[in-house]
Amino acid sequence: MTAYDDSNIFAQILRGEVPSFKVYEDDDTLCFMDIMPRTDGHCLVIPKTPCRNVLDASDAQLAAVMATVKKVANAAKAAFDADGITLQQFNETAGGQEVFHLHFHIHPRHDGVPMRPAGQMGDMDAIKGHAKKISAAL
Amino acid sequence: MTAYDDSNIFAQILRGEVPSFKVYEDDDTLCFMDIMPRTDGHCLVIPKTPCRNVLDASDAQLAAVMATVKKVANAAKAAFDADGITLQQFNETAGGQEVFHLHFHIHPRHDGVPMRPAGQMGDMDAIKGHAKKISAAL
Repeated sequence: MTAYDDSNIFAQILRGEVPSFKVYEDDDTLCFMDIMPRTDGHCLVIPKTPCRNVLDASDAQLAAVMATVKKVANAAKAAFDADGITLQQFNETAGGQEVFHLHFHIHPRHDGVPMRPAGQMGDMDAIKGHAKKISAAL
Repeated sequence: MTAYDDSNIFAQILRGEVPSFKVYEDDDTLCFMDIMPRTDGHCLVIPKTPCRNVLDASDAQLAAVMATVKKVANAAKAAFDADGITLQQFNETAGGQEVFHLHFHIHPRHDGVPMRPAGQMGDMDAIKGHAKKISAAL
């Protein structure tokens, strides 16, 4: 398995070198908005310590990340009055991974509303508002 | 949130009332094959104790499930000589959930090979073989 490379964008966010729309933070995890949102409220949960993805994560990193995923998923569902939540997590390029620091995607979903295509930059003001909305529901 | 209903098919599998192609089992979790595989090696990890999905799972259930997901994902990647792994986890109907017992989907992925459409019954002999292949890599 390829070694962790700390030049990735999420490591830069963790070091404060790159800004993000923060939703939640604790000792072990950070949640911030995806700036190419496939749903309104699309956010990411990452561990603060380095690992590439699920394949090399420790059980402790996974446990901490999932506790935060659960917390934020419930808040996002409430904040957007969503009917459900879709989680996605990609490992290596073939698995869909683009940033090589473990992350879970949280998508608030509404009945009959498909996810938008991937790779489209969102409106920063709207995303900032969505971050506040989820934070307020936490 | 809707209460857990133990008439779901995964609860029946856990009680031994319905057969499954088992991949892995420990005190807290079970992994078995999806019989509508969207990729070769598509399998599911569930907790042995009841919860509907991530939204009502305990931190302990999530930690146990993710430890098994990591273990099986690495084994499935090796068994299928895969280039990556895609994880999906659906919460409520709007989120994509069809069986209301918490489960994570594990998909071995190969570069440039899309997932097959959902909802197509697989070949049982092939699926049985895939279960053995992943078990052997554990």
